[in-house]
Order: sequence, then structure tokens, then C-alpha cells
Amino acid sequence: MRGEGEGEREEKEEKKTQKTTMLDEKTLMEKLESIVGGVESVEGVETDDKGEVLMHAIAQDYKTGEVLMLAHMNKEALRLTLQTGKAHYWSRSRRKIWRKGETSGNEQIVKDILIDCDGDAILLKVEQKGGACHTGYRSCFYRRLNGEIVSEKVFDPAEKYGKQRKESVK
Amino acid sequence: MRGEGEGEREEKEEKKTQKTTMLDEKTLMEKLESIVGGVESVEGVETDDKGEVLMHAIAQDYKTGEVLMLAHMNKEALRLTLQTGKAHYWSRSRRKIWRKGETSGNEQIVKDILIDCDGDAILLKVEQKGGACHTGYRSCFYRRLNGEIVSEKVFDPAEKYGKQRKESVK
Repeated sequence: MRGEGEGEREEKEEKKTQKTTMLDEKTLMEKLESIVGGVESVEGVETDDKGEVLMHAIAQDYKTGEVLMLAHMNKEALRLTLQTGKAHYWSRSRRKIWRKGETSGNEQIVKDILIDCDGDAILLKVEQKGGACHTGYRSCFYRRLNGEIVSEKVFDPAEKYGKQRKESVK
Repeated sequence: MRGEGEGEREEKEEKKTQKTTMLDEKTLMEKLESIVGGVESVEGVETDDKGEVLMHAIAQDYKTGEVLMLAHMNKEALRLTLQTGKAHYWSRSRRKIWRKGETSGNEQIVKDILIDCDGDAILLKVEQKGGACHTGYRSCFYRRLNGEIVSEKVFDPAEKYGKQRKESVK
């Protein structure tokens, strides 16, 4: 991203996308199994309802670099993400898998997936439709600690989810 | 970050920094207390050794937007971060607070701090000295799922940490 033109960067991203989707899913899952196995020894690591380790998943706008949200994935959520090319997460509060945008339409088209050094965090580079945050902002990181707003409001949550919705999406 | 010149961006970042450091720490911690209180009800949320909720903390290069690492913070780590302007985290494996770069010198100068919608994740915009990853890469997200390297190796970990170091920094 350093000093590259928009067009050039886009072309590179396109190539990355092709590489990611061309990977063999079974091989990926086996690789992941061996990596994720390594973090189970860490005390207090979060799990899903089957006791499976949850990975942290950061979604980042693949063009602007804006960090959009942080959620969690179990292996099934990652498998669905790889299979469909759309971001799926594990909801810690609702105890189930959800596809980002399944209610709002604000889905995330996955352009690239990176994994961190100790294999407990995933970075998704995505094309975010609409806004990532259930509050209507482009990013869930829309404010400073003092409440000052730094992100753009891009939709009306009442319109998207109905007025009853009070729960967090996580 | 959309279409702004480097100089202009830098100037804006400078202003942001000043705003962050000018905030009253006590007010911030009170605000944080009320926000963090809200996530304790989520089943399976991670805690430190005093049972205090851990926040996820993403470090992002404040200039390039590169996501550097994901770690955790308890309130004391955040307090130390605000107080010193250098990133402090809670180590889940070592069960203690650590200052990023305390061994390697690869510290993170905090330029801005954002908090997410439901208050369980923090985004630090930092100036990263050297590399963020204990493996010597600029970012902990240095590879795709298939092992393909996408980040830059910027230091030799054996030289920085000594050859004995096998543990993850988290």
C-alpha cells in the first residue's frame, strides 16, 4: 500500500483474490486444524458450544485499510467463508453462526484472508456493502474513548433491522 | 485516508494525537468502566486473573493502515497505555501486563485510540518501531492460510530475543 496508485493496487488485490479462492479447501482446513490445535493450551481461550476454539476475526476494508469490525469464527464459520466467499462468524451471544449481512444486506465479500503468527486470529480483507456496524456506521470503531465520532453514518439501523432489534450483532 | 496527500494526513493525525493525550484520564476510565461493564453478561468472555473482562486490542499502523497484531488489554493495561502513550497489553499465556517492545525495543507509540460499538474491542493507531511480530515480520498477519508470506521481515528474532525464546508474546 505504500505509494502505489489505486489502479495498480486494485489489480494486485484482484490477483490475491484469485489465489485465495483457488486454494484447496480440504488442505486449508487440515492446515488450520494443526494451527488452531496449538492455542488450546492457553488458559482462558474462548470456545464455541462444542468446546472448539474461537479465532478472533478482524474485517478490514480491502481498499481503504479501514478496520471495520472484530468478531469471532469457529472452524465451521471459516469453512463457510471459504466456500461462499462471504464472511461468516460465530456469535458469542446468540451461540450460533451468522452470515454478515444476512438481515441488513450489508454483506462482506472476502478478497483475502491472512492468519497471525500463533494462529488464533484471522484478518479478512473485505469489500463491505453498506456499513459494517449495526449502529449504522461504516465501521464498528466509529468513536474515540471520549465518544467523539470518527466514522461515517451510512444507514439507518431502525430501517434495516426494525425497531425491535436491541441486541448486539455479536 | 481517501485521496488525501501524505502531508495533509500526517497533519490530521497529529491533531488526533493531541486530542487523545489531552483527554482526562479519570473521565476516560470511568467511561470505560461503564462500557466494559456491559460485556460481562456475554457467556464465555475472557477475563484476566482478577476476573476482569479482557478487551481485544488491534494495533494498526497509523500511516499505512496495515493491521499489525491482535492482543488483549485489561483496564490496567489501558490505563498504562493512556498514561505513557506506549501500548501495554495483558498476556493471556504469561498472566501479566507487558509493554510492547520491552524486550525487543519494538515499541508502539500510540497516536489514536478507538473503541467499538459494544465496547469490548479497542483499535490502537500506532507508530510501530521495527516489527510488531516476534517472528521478525512487520505484521503478525504475515501469511495467508496456505503459508504464503505477505509481510516484510524486518528483524532477526534470534538477535532481538536471544535463541532461548520459544514462547509466543501473547
